[in-house]
Amino acid sequence: MLSAEIIAIGSELLTPTKTDTNSLWLTEKLNENGIEVKLKTVVGDDELRLKETIKDALNRSDVVITTGGLGPTEDDITRQVSADAVGRKLIFRENILADISKKFRKMNREMPEINKRQAFIIENADILPNPNGSAPGMFVEIDNKYLILLPGPPRELKPMFENFVLPKLKQTVGEIYVKRKVLRVTGMGESAVDELIAPIYTLYKNPQTSTLFNRSLLEELADKIVEKLGSAVFAVNGELMEEVIGQLLIENGKTLAVAESCTGGLIAQRLTEIPGASKFFIEGVIAYANAAKIRSLNVAPDLIEIFGAVSAEVAEAMAKGLLERAGTDFAISITGIAGPNGATEDKPVGLVFIGYASKAEVKSIKLNLPGDRHLIRWRASQAALDFLRRKMIKKDA
Amino acid sequence: MLSAEIIAIGSELLTPTKTDTNSLWLTEKLNENGIEVKLKTVVGDDELRLKETIKDALNRSDVVITTGGLGPTEDDITRQVSADAVGRKLIFRENILADISKKFRKMNREMPEINKRQAFIIENADILPNPNGSAPGMFVEIDNKYLILLPGPPRELKPMFENFVLPKLKQTVGEIYVKRKVLRVTGMGESAVDELIAPIYTLYKNPQTSTLFNRSLLEELADKIVEKLGSAVFAVNGELMEEVIGQLLIENGKTLAVAESCTGGLIAQRLTEIPGASKFFIEGVIAYANAAKIRSLNVAPDLIEIFGAVSAEVAEAMAKGLLERAGTDFAISITGIAGPNGATEDKPVGLVFIGYASKAEVKSIKLNLPGDRHLIRWRASQAALDFLRRKMIKKDA
Repeated sequence: MLSAEIIAIGSELLTPTKTDTNSLWLTEKLNENGIEVKLKTVVGDDELRLKETIKDALNRSDVVITTGGLGPTEDDITRQVSADAVGRKLIFRENILADISKKFRKMNREMPEINKRQAFIIENADILPNPNGSAPGMFVEIDNKYLILLPGPPRELKPMFENFVLPKLKQTVGEIYVKRKVLRVTGMGESAVDELIAPIYTLYKNPQTSTLFNRSLLEELADKIVEKLGSAVFAVNGELMEEVIGQLLIENGKTLAVAESCTGGLIAQRLTEIPGASKFFIEGVIAYANAAKIRSLNVAPDLIEIFGAVSAEVAEAMAKGLLERAGTDFAISITGIAGPNGATEDKPVGLVFIGYASKAEVKSIKLNLPGDRHLIRWRASQAALDFLRRKMIKKDA
Repeated sequence: MLSAEIIAIGSELLTPTKTDTNSLWLTEKLNENGIEVKLKTVVGDDELRLKETIKDALNRSDVVITTGGLGPTEDDITRQVSADAVGRKLIFRENILADISKKFRKMNREMPEINKRQAFIIENADILPNPNGSAPGMFVEIDNKYLILLPGPPRELKPMFENFVLPKLKQTVGEIYVKRKVLRVTGMGESAVDELIAPIYTLYKNPQTSTLFNRSLLEELADKIVEKLGSAVFAVNGELMEEVIGQLLIENGKTLAVAESCTGGLIAQRLTEIPGASKFFIEGVIAYANAAKIRSLNVAPDLIEIFGAVSAEVAEAMAKGLLERAGTDFAISITGIAGPNGATEDKPVGLVFIGYASKAEVKSIKLNLPGDRHLIRWRASQAALDFLRRKMIKKDA
């Protein structure tokens, strides 16, 4: 199995707010083709460190991919430093320059003088065309290893990698069929899941033959895990909870409305992020103020008075009220305390009630969720969707 | 200025779905204290590569921080490999073991045998206490350089770094006051902003003295940029748009309701993610179906019939209808085509209408937003909040 390293280049990637997302995408593509990523580096516009990083990477690994630093400015040092690292010259290529200036003319702009730098290519490198930008990439073979220089912008990097790099790598590694199966689980902690399934998956663990692990073995393992975890597994092909809910609703020809308080629209936002949500999602009400719960969800003021806005009674009334108002097959509701403020002695941060209403029944559950405001909101939205899912797969809803 | 490198350890960080977020947080903390991060590495549970990475880092940089790999299992190789890399022994410390087993007892659990591995400490290392987990960190001084071993889980890493690592680093670098100012801009592309402000900031660029760049110079530069960009700058201290809106509403004692179609709850979710949103946010309606627009926002069916659901007329009716219904000072609305489906010949993907209503007026704007579904929704939510912001700061709302 070939090993790879990815080097992301650019001082901006060493700031607290920028993450290198190219490497995630590249890792996925490399893994799919049977190449394992062994190390990733982020290095600034620092010639010495970059040169050392490239040399070290080529010593250790078969495929070294750099991203970024191919622009036209002084900060763009990847070309020169890579050439130095492999002991080759940069050569000016008239045809590349012609190609770059043609791209500028097409946009009715004159090519700035500095873009000439992008026409220098490492000796004996193959050129990787860049239909979406001015900088060409390079594919350099050195002693049966590969140094691949890609531009930083994802819209330039991705097509270049798929159209020009992958075919070259496939010539070397051959066509490899990598099958992955992603099971998603909810309502159980990581350690609880592990305790249940470790006795199963350890039987299959065999790192030496992991690339030979065949398809039927994978399905067998997945089946055994699903059997053990039961309905806690909500997806067997990596689908998100909102996708699972959408599919179930569409398959059963059912519609949904959502009444949210502490999650403030998060459930609706998750459901409608999926294209085609209009097939099942009718209406959402974010009843943040009590007055809104009364006005828009028909919650009796007495209920709020007696039990409080964060209560099983109000959660159920919210779901029931919206079901009737929107005329949908299902309604789910959430009321809770996401924190950091709003807690009382008997209603702590993380206390959440989830309501559910169908024509047949109205139910609720009570949860005490850990985490900060953001996590509590997310976990509450996940639990509400899961409640609906369990109702639908039991077909008792 | 001290230089630092961060090494994130763990094979799971080399998968397509996991990103190393610890390093972003650490970079921010290091920068604030005048230490510059020069390189970041992600390496798997691979002894040779890790050893080489640690050695190289200590050769190049003053401070080397590793994260992860301090757990109790065979995969947790950071202790042993770090000791090897600096040529020191691992020493078993009875008092650390006692401390770890005490933590287990407190949770009414017996310490598994494998946790003994966590009581091995690099010779002459200072121990970094871990109140939130079993693995202690280590602070190793070697020839005036520092190798710092931190656990991977953020809830263990962060307090350990703040309480035990930073004070030690400050002894070395002294108290440095680093001032950063983050201006946030909306409604202009990156290149348009750069074209306007490049003539300003280039006058100030002086990398050699960047650590000496003083506070009043920073304020002066920020002021000039704000003057040039005008009301496109919505935040001068890095606040998010939803925070700016919240502050404006609270300061002016005003309330808001939000009617969303294509954004499906995203605006409400953003506003309520901020603690204290209940002070100004009253109600949200996600009127996804046309029937919901009519029923819950009092949009006249004729308007939808004549102009279509995605139109200025319907956007205005949505905002006006909700303002009246919720009795708030302001209401904003969004209707549009987020794609990938739903476009028609004269209503393309990205067409979005934003409505605004106050007691004094009802307005709308039309946008053609680029991007995929996710980006169009985000941009529409940002534009709607910005429309409200501009109305509020003009005080004509």
